[in-house]
Amino acid sequence: MATKKIIIDCDPGVDDAIAIMLALSASEELELLGITTVAGNVALDHTTRNALGICNLLGRSDVGVYAGCSRPLMRTTGHRSIMHGAEGLGGVVLDTSGTPRDAHAIDFIIDTVMANPGQVTLCPIGPLTNVAMAIVKEPRLAANIDQIVFMGGAAFRPGNTTPAAEFNIYVDPHSAHIVATAGAPLVMFGLDVTNTVVATPGRLKTLQQLDNDAGRQAVAMISAYAKGDPCLHDPCVIAWLLRPELFTGIEAFLEIDSSPGINQGRTVACVGERHLAGTEPNCWIITGADCDGIFALLSDKFNKLT
Amino acid sequence: MATKKIIIDCDPGVDDAIAIMLALSASEELELLGITTVAGNVALDHTTRNALGICNLLGRSDVGVYAGCSRPLMRTTGHRSIMHGAEGLGGVVLDTSGTPRDAHAIDFIIDTVMANPGQVTLCPIGPLTNVAMAIVKEPRLAANIDQIVFMGGAAFRPGNTTPAAEFNIYVDPHSAHIVATAGAPLVMFGLDVTNTVVATPGRLKTLQQLDNDAGRQAVAMISAYAKGDPCLHDPCVIAWLLRPELFTGIEAFLEIDSSPGINQGRTVACVGERHLAGTEPNCWIITGADCDGIFALLSDKFNKLT
Amino acid sequence: MATKKIIIDCDPGVDDAIAIMLALSASEELELLGITTVAGNVALDHTTRNALGICNLLGRSDVGVYAGCSRPLMRTTGHRSIMHGAEGLGGVVLDTSGTPRDAHAIDFIIDTVMANPGQVTLCPIGPLTNVAMAIVKEPRLAANIDQIVFMGGAAFRPGNTTPAAEFNIYVDPHSAHIVATAGAPLVMFGLDVTNTVVATPGRLKTLQQLDNDAGRQAVAMISAYAKGDPCLHDPCVIAWLLRPELFTGIEAFLEIDSSPGINQGRTVACVGERHLAGTEPNCWIITGADCDGIFALLSDKFNKLT
Amino acid sequence: MATKKIIIDCDPGVDDAIAIMLALSASEELELLGITTVAGNVALDHTTRNALGICNLLGRSDVGVYAGCSRPLMRTTGHRSIMHGAEGLGGVVLDTSGTPRDAHAIDFIIDTVMANPGQVTLCPIGPLTNVAMAIVKEPRLAANIDQIVFMGGAAFRPGNTTPAAEFNIYVDPHSAHIVATAGAPLVMFGLDVTNTVVATPGRLKTLQQLDNDAGRQAVAMISAYAKGDPCLHDPCVIAWLLRPELFTGIEAFLEIDSSPGINQGRTVACVGERHLAGTEPNCWIITGADCDGIFALLSDKFNKLT
Repeated sequence: MATKKIIIDCDPGVDDAIAIMLALSASEELELLGITTVAGNVALDHTTRNALGICNLLGRSDVGVYAGCSRPLMRTTGHRSIMHGAEGLGGVVLDTSGTPRDAHAIDFIIDTVMANPGQVTLCPIGPLTNVAMAIVKEPRLAANIDQIVFMGGAAFRPGNTTPAAEFNIYVDPHSAHIVATAGAPLVMFGLDVTNTVVATPGRLKTLQQLDNDAGRQAVAMISAYAKGDPCLHDPCVIAWLLRPELFTGIEAFLEIDSSPGINQGRTVACVGERHLAGTEPNCWIITGADCDGIFALLSDKFNKLT
Repeated sequence: MATKKIIIDCDPGVDDAIAIMLALSASEELELLGITTVAGNVALDHTTRNALGICNLLGRSDVGVYAGCSRPLMRTTGHRSIMHGAEGLGGVVLDTSGTPRDAHAIDFIIDTVMANPGQVTLCPIGPLTNVAMAIVKEPRLAANIDQIVFMGGAAFRPGNTTPAAEFNIYVDPHSAHIVATAGAPLVMFGLDVTNTVVATPGRLKTLQQLDNDAGRQAVAMISAYAKGDPCLHDPCVIAWLLRPELFTGIEAFLEIDSSPGINQGRTVACVGERHLAGTEPNCWIITGADCDGIFALLSDKFNKLT
Repeated sequence: MATKKIIIDCDPGVDDAIAIMLALSASEELELLGITTVAGNVALDHTTRNALGICNLLGRSDVGVYAGCSRPLMRTTGHRSIMHGAEGLGGVVLDTSGTPRDAHAIDFIIDTVMANPGQVTLCPIGPLTNVAMAIVKEPRLAANIDQIVFMGGAAFRPGNTTPAAEFNIYVDPHSAHIVATAGAPLVMFGLDVTNTVVATPGRLKTLQQLDNDAGRQAVAMISAYAKGDPCLHDPCVIAWLLRPELFTGIEAFLEIDSSPGINQGRTVACVGERHLAGTEPNCWIITGADCDGIFALLSDKFNKLT
Repeated sequence: MATKKIIIDCDPGVDDAIAIMLALSASEELELLGITTVAGNVALDHTTRNALGICNLLGRSDVGVYAGCSRPLMRTTGHRSIMHGAEGLGGVVLDTSGTPRDAHAIDFIIDTVMANPGQVTLCPIGPLTNVAMAIVKEPRLAANIDQIVFMGGAAFRPGNTTPAAEFNIYVDPHSAHIVATAGAPLVMFGLDVTNTVVATPGRLKTLQQLDNDAGRQAVAMISAYAKGDPCLHDPCVIAWLLRPELFTGIEAFLEIDSSPGINQGRTVACVGERHLAGTEPNCWIITGADCDGIFALLSDKFNKLT
């Protein structure tokens, strides 16, 4: 398997942290070109500091962290999650020394994709503000992205922030609309699948047998986080890049409801003949997962950390 | 069990027809005060004629049929189903002699409810135009209805007319909003449950052993209809009135999205602590059914027809 | 000039009262078939009582008053004006003995129009709930109305209730949409013209010289009302029926914005070639008035009262 | 009068061209730090080329031209004006040699404002995409802008693209919302005033007496353009910076309707006590102009060109 170039766009947040760790632990398969941060679960300063801390924890301060947008497109104040602790990492204290790179996340995404046309996979696991801004700023960007594999939305289930909307899309539905209509291939990990990837006591127990420091920190974060939301949302994106056979999905025409109202931020999926009349699918929506397989992958990879 | 007074508001339609037949076959438990018709699956003239035909088929031309609204509130042209055949009853030809009563459906609903305060259950199984118009016309109506048990919507599943909306609500979402906010107790049979009530070959086979004419006509309709949509949506409403123990449900705060856009006509359900913050439940949403039990009930009741 | 049959649908309110008085004072030209009331400026009980009082004041208790809808279509609570005093008539106390007729306003409108096909002019000068409900209930109604001459909206000016919307349309924009799309010929008296019909001290002075009781009461109402809103909105509708040459207007394609948001209740007028592309005009929007002529008409007619 | 630092953000377009020329002809009062271009009247390539051509025409190739966004935020395809000729300058052929600077318009705006905190006036006279993107990318930007003086909208008049919306706002209402809510002081030149600034034959005649080449080209453009739209919209922005006493206006709370529907792109202005309840004004809306004075200013300034 050739190395796949990826950028993780995130708002860590515990499950973002686990996703980054999983990517860094799989360096034979994935080349993490950089981490871009966005306001979301916590404010931009915190998500950026947390991204630095995760890289430090894994001895990978060589990975560039690029700070991005501190607010969604249309809303002047962001929406914060109550799930991630004051600093967003479930109370785990990391060494957050170091500084983000000079370039803005938007420009890092544009420059990196345009320098590697057709080769970069974007992995947004927070609100889609940075990706949308990059798409609007550089009209050639979408055609040069390999694919966008994102965590967000809920196509066939209720949301977790409103009855209709999942957090990442709810926070910035306008950016999600821009991304969904950009023309780049999309793979969506919404609550349809991620809500099933539950960190049960049994699965956590296996992870707790890791005997390296990074692994122990990861388990501490997950364990703290699991008290509020036991689902490992964001790591699914990276797990799929490593082991797509662990997941099942469905072709769909995905639309975002960005209009104010009770369905704002809802991801609407047209699937099946009746609904797809006249439209081409633009998204592969993941709907099922081998959860034990995902946790086995985590154990396997984290075991190699030091 | 005391007799329960009901009005069926409908747009027959095969599954409406089965619902009416089920109600009429259960005259010891249900007193059908009248049938009101509305445009929906087919045009008003047809739904009215079909209602007359069903009454004739069961020798119950004494049951009053009251024609109602020929269009939804805000849309000038209705939306027709392709599921019900040219005349809406799966090609079964009925004796449709007789005429509807003079009163408009709106006024029949108002007069009947106000004459039996707190005792009448409305069973709308088509678009909610008649019920909404009655609620607006008579401000005391909602407080005098026992409950509104309706077929419509899809709270936790995709719709059948758009990815977001079920037919009855999609056709007239504004009326659905009026009904949902009126203050009367609501029981909702949406696709969440009705899509599971499938007329499988095995279940149809049992029905086909009925040896009375009405039963045979019912089975013919269902069999023709099942080729397009094998689910018995509307009869669930009547089945629940007869055997509530066949169903399970959940308390919710129900809202209707009537705004233009991709979620128009969607039924949004707030359930659970997080979503219900600050709101009281206004609806009991049925989510599960003992399908074999429902078909056994149909067989049992239709067996008594002649 | 042949007598023109009219129904005034209103929510008196001072300027409604003046409109009714003007119509009753012009009995050679206008046959007032009945007055229908609606919630609006004040609650339905008050608008109905006020309508009775105005008829009593003019010795015309023979004119039927028909109570209509106590709420708008989609909103559960109405919006009240602060302009009309506690009882809605600027503090003038009328003899409100008598009772409204038995028929609901909706049915009176339907029955009267259908009994006089093509001959009845509807004059709605409050929220359009009654007219919309009648249109939905009786699908043949719109084709049998001579014309609908209404006070409401603001096509080329700011609103008076929100920056975008005038009171009558704001209160029930969904009903306004139903009326605007019904197909009946429309003449609109919005703030475009009615805001120019100002009861200046000079114009009031002439009115104050009336030496009959009804005229004095009218002037008392106008004078009290003028302290809050000096414009005679509703009487313009009746004045136009009597003296169309006092007004100028423009053909337009009128649409109502009923969507929630900052323009809810706005009347959008397409005028001129660029905007009308592909649409036929459906409304004559009155934009100018000979204000002195209107007040002279009021004096002239009120002089004949006793 | 101290020199005022400005950036013109534009989509030339004839009236944009005149605005740039007016700014360059007033170099004692205005320091044009750069010109940023955006898709609007014509595509981005054209607006950028036209901006270069105008600078060349005036011998000011030293002024940097920075290409910006080629599309609005939420719409994938822009809306083009039919008013500006194939190349957008009324058929006038300019020397468009030279190239835009390397920096993207968004970054030029951010870097320039942040390097001159509180001193730069932004003059957007096209769709507001670049300015909105800059505001989202750099959260400190809005607080460091002196003021935003923009051409766009129609607060008290019909639009020119739809009955509700003016072209610049209609093309990208979401960006307009971002700008309107950013907190920077706003001065709005909408159709309220610009539609009155008509290039009458008499006013054009005076301009035609200019005896320098640049002036003659300007007059040729205006004359060609005036056949479609005789109003000098964009130059008003620059004229106000030079001679504010030529204009009158009103304080308002400005909101943008970005929702889909018939009022999309409408600029809603709350003015007066009733509408401003609870809100602070965020915009000075220009409503009146001394048109002869504006044309005299044009003549006066253009006379100095060579």
